[in-house]
Amino acid sequence: MKARITITLKNGVLDPQGKAIEGALSSLGFPGVSNVRQGKYIELDIEGGDAQAAEAAVNDMCDKLLANTVIENYSVKVS
Amino acid sequence: MKARITITLKNGVLDPQGKAIEGALSSLGFPGVSNVRQGKYIELDIEGGDAQAAEAAVNDMCDKLLANTVIENYSVKVS
Repeated sequence: MKARITITLKNGVLDPQGKAIEGALSSLGFPGVSNVRQGKYIELDIEGGDAQAAEAAVNDMCDKLLANTVIENYSVKVS
Repeated sequence: MKARITITLKNGVLDPQGKAIEGALSSLGFPGVSNVRQGKYIELDIEGGDAQAAEAAVNDMCDKLLANTVIENYSVKVS
């Protein structure tokens, strides 16, 4: 099964990378862009045919390794 | 409108970061995980009420700044 994980900074956590992108877009001539936030996206294949078990395992991976849950949120989609 | 952009490495492009995650997951005791690929996720707000125009603008941003289209694919969702 394929798992798609999106990891984003929590609201209120400063995102200097997002700010840099916002500034660059503005100087490239894209007006009206705001609230740019950069996060991570991870795809992985996981063995087994049970979507619920796979999702639980991936949530566990996020808690233990992939996301820093102090400052980041994550969402998992298994298909 | 909110745009969500996912940027991933093209197939065939080596992903050492994904390999490192795969190794770390395996040593943490998560078996059966393979093909780990890490990409980027960017969220931004864009002014205007026309979803098609917004999507075209965001595609343009990806081509010009956000993605390296030689080695990366991107997908855009506007809502």
